[in-house]
Amino acid sequence: MRIDFLTLFPEMFTGVLHSSMLKKAQEKNAVRYFLHNFREYTENKHNRVDDYPYGGGAGMVLSPQPVYDALEAVKAAAGDTKPRIILLCPQGERYTQEKARELAEAQHLILVCGHYEGYDERIREHMVTDEISIGDFVLTGGELGAMVIADSVTRLLPEVLGNEESAQKDSFEENRLEHPHYTRPAEFRGWKVPDVLLSGHHKNIEAWRENESLKRTRERRPDLLAVEAERKNNKK
Amino acid sequence: MRIDFLTLFPEMFTGVLHSSMLKKAQEKNAVRYFLHNFREYTENKHNRVDDYPYGGGAGMVLSPQPVYDALEAVKAAAGDTKPRIILLCPQGERYTQEKARELAEAQHLILVCGHYEGYDERIREHMVTDEISIGDFVLTGGELGAMVIADSVTRLLPEVLGNEESAQKDSFEENRLEHPHYTRPAEFRGWKVPDVLLSGHHKNIEAWRENESLKRTRERRPDLLAVEAERKNNKK
Repeated sequence: MRIDFLTLFPEMFTGVLHSSMLKKAQEKNAVRYFLHNFREYTENKHNRVDDYPYGGGAGMVLSPQPVYDALEAVKAAAGDTKPRIILLCPQGERYTQEKARELAEAQHLILVCGHYEGYDERIREHMVTDEISIGDFVLTGGELGAMVIADSVTRLLPEVLGNEESAQKDSFEENRLEHPHYTRPAEFRGWKVPDVLLSGHHKNIEAWRENESLKRTRERRPDLLAVEAERKNNKK
Repeated sequence: MRIDFLTLFPEMFTGVLHSSMLKKAQEKNAVRYFLHNFREYTENKHNRVDDYPYGGGAGMVLSPQPVYDALEAVKAAAGDTKPRIILLCPQGERYTQEKARELAEAQHLILVCGHYEGYDERIREHMVTDEISIGDFVLTGGELGAMVIADSVTRLLPEVLGNEESAQKDSFEENRLEHPHYTRPAEFRGWKVPDVLLSGHHKNIEAWRENESLKRTRERRPDLLAVEAERKNNKK
């Protein structure tokens, strides 16, 4: 997979793309990341990427031209890849694990990050294929959202995670929160590991985990159980 | 405000904390960030922070001891701050703008980032005050979630954003998506700015924006309108 980031702050990405799993995924040639500063694509002499909004109001608006030209350059460099071009914005579709799985099937993603009051609407209407929001909170720019997508998608690529089971059993894959985990020591500052986990009785451990997972989901995220029930109903 | 990050990958944060708004917020002394690698707090000679899960299963579990000792050290260094200690995890409360506003009132945040199959349950039960998830997707670690919280909270601190209105009018502040924005040129590759925005007729522009904002919210996020209706109802 190829992932291109269009941003005014490419230096924000360096630490994230060169650590941990994302670093290993590149070393395994499962993915290639490319950073582009679309300020370099401006046609005006001051390299301005934004301008005042038509109709007045506070804040600046990202101009269509630099984004358009940067996208054309990336598409030309990548060849015939039919990229998913994703705009990170609060108005976008809410990002979920299901969307991550869908994007992991693509050959090429281009993530467009703004850093202003808003995007010129023509970027949204004519230049991108998807609009995604990572949640109902306001961030300074699209960069962190782009990193979230890169991380969640990359870890789903074949051969990236050593332990297949690790990717499989994560929360949300089955609309269920995970059961509690414990590791050594059996007692830490008076806080003990539940006896059943020390028992070596695998059937009881399985039952305890299943029960705790269900209990936790019911307490914290009953909406997930509703989704699961509906899915099972639809299968019938 | 003081924000401490407990992580095994402090280098992931550098680019994000030293760019754009987060950089300026530090220069204005509105916030101070501190990075701590809790691997440095391990008591075993191989500096292991994780161990096998009791009861068996795939993946590793973050041990309680290094997190406990790192938290104690940070609390001692910060003095009497009564920190909010936040664990980033998929089982946590869903992060929202409302939560960002709540956290922006705190004097001190400590963000705990794991990078494994799971956290030992005793970290969750005895060491933290909050558990937060930024969304229903699986990430390699808690780092990106911690950066999301730092960004969304920092921009709400007094004096951080130059333009007060910018922070006020963002999406989600009033359960409404923003209206479309346009800037120059009035025509780009045949794509035109709506006439009303070029008219100079402020009342019509206001009406158009209000209408577009409502239309967009109805199309893309009807759930936000339901929240807003309920809030108004409760006020009566």
